[in-house]
Amino acid sequence: MCELLGMSANVPTDICFSFKGLKERGGRTGPHKDGWGVAFYENKGVCTFKDALPSYQSEIARLVSDYPIKSTAVIAHVRQANRGRVALANTHPFTRELWGRYWTYAHNGQLSAYKGLPVNRFQPVGTTDSERAFCFILSELAKRYPDKQPGPKAAFRYISKLLPQLQQLGVFNMLLTDGEYLLAYCTTKLQWITRRAPFGMARLSDVDVDIDFSKETTPNDVVTIIATEPLTNNEQWHKMHPGEQQLFRFGEPVSF
Amino acid sequence: MCELLGMSANVPTDICFSFKGLKERGGRTGPHKDGWGVAFYENKGVCTFKDALPSYQSEIARLVSDYPIKSTAVIAHVRQANRGRVALANTHPFTRELWGRYWTYAHNGQLSAYKGLPVNRFQPVGTTDSERAFCFILSELAKRYPDKQPGPKAAFRYISKLLPQLQQLGVFNMLLTDGEYLLAYCTTKLQWITRRAPFGMARLSDVDVDIDFSKETTPNDVVTIIATEPLTNNEQWHKMHPGEQQLFRFGEPVSF
Repeated sequence: MCELLGMSANVPTDICFSFKGLKERGGRTGPHKDGWGVAFYENKGVCTFKDALPSYQSEIARLVSDYPIKSTAVIAHVRQANRGRVALANTHPFTRELWGRYWTYAHNGQLSAYKGLPVNRFQPVGTTDSERAFCFILSELAKRYPDKQPGPKAAFRYISKLLPQLQQLGVFNMLLTDGEYLLAYCTTKLQWITRRAPFGMARLSDVDVDIDFSKETTPNDVVTIIATEPLTNNEQWHKMHPGEQQLFRFGEPVSF
Repeated sequence: MCELLGMSANVPTDICFSFKGLKERGGRTGPHKDGWGVAFYENKGVCTFKDALPSYQSEIARLVSDYPIKSTAVIAHVRQANRGRVALANTHPFTRELWGRYWTYAHNGQLSAYKGLPVNRFQPVGTTDSERAFCFILSELAKRYPDKQPGPKAAFRYISKLLPQLQQLGVFNMLLTDGEYLLAYCTTKLQWITRRAPFGMARLSDVDVDIDFSKETTPNDVVTIIATEPLTNNEQWHKMHPGEQQLFRFGEPVSF
């Protein structure tokens, strides 16, 4: 299995604090030692760091946890390989361009019979069930709207109709973003928290680090963090139930 | 304008030495201060670091120049913006997936009338002439071979027939790779050097750094470096002439 981490924010925000917790689960406090990756959006642009090494030992992960890269949408992942060997090509998150936007995705879980998922316009590069499911989602989306992007909510509504098919193949916890909207889908484990004023202290579960968000934020900041398991041990996270999905935009949960 | 750097090697090799030179041109010894990026292939997987900051000041660029990431195909770029503002979405190199392979590209030069270049399957995310030309190349390639990859040389032969169209629009020095083959196309400035046994000393032009490659290599290593201007001042580089193109594979120039 793997662990997911996502962020949606209304102002460019770094993910150093949360990533410090996640990276420990990549081989030290968790068994997810088979690679890690993180994608940061800056408007429509995206920059992805990834590495097939355990994140807790990776020099690149150390940079990401110490150097504040500001973003309004982030997806990160630490991997414990099941389908597909340990290799950069099998390391999440995955990104593809559709309609002049970058779509980025990461998956936690394991699918059976995934090789039968039809893909056409988007083809997997690696051999994971995860990447094939991503290519299936985007191929279907491109087939439904071949020429141009419908309203963004219409695109996510269409995606949400595809997800139960994937749930039938196994465990499918997922984060997917176009850089503006971020969709979280839960079949077993996914939790989120929205932080806003008045901000307080937060303490990581996996390493002895705490932060006073009131010193790091302005009163208008709204930041949602989504994770497989809560990253802090002194806050109340919202636990998603099987089959639940939630869309976020600029830090806020939105209906669609 | 911008500067390009590429590497093709027969064994996984780091690009720290050459990148140390290039990164200085990103704002210190050269005017290319409007972002930088570098893509490293590990077999079919690719990892791209990019940043809209000047490379000579970037923490991420410092990591890339100090931390040996081993790869057999690399494309790097430092940018001086002309078409398209300074932004992550306009920062090279650009990557797209076609036929289950990642294609990565960077451009040096400036094109006029580039907005008329037809693109369909691949759409630009940013606003540069460079990314539009890349989407044109891949869209034409996908149109010619819609279902699956022809032989890799056939794909590069088809690409090479498209390039004179781009040359007619302005300056078009380019590096393009599928992770195995790397194509260099020159309309004004591009030079390359192949290093093989017996290896010797090399000295960077832009910063006081030298290296004894005989201590860093094995006798069978073959590594080609391609750059806008030679990065070393004690070696003989091959200067490409306008309209010249050269394909490389595993460090060796190959015909196609």
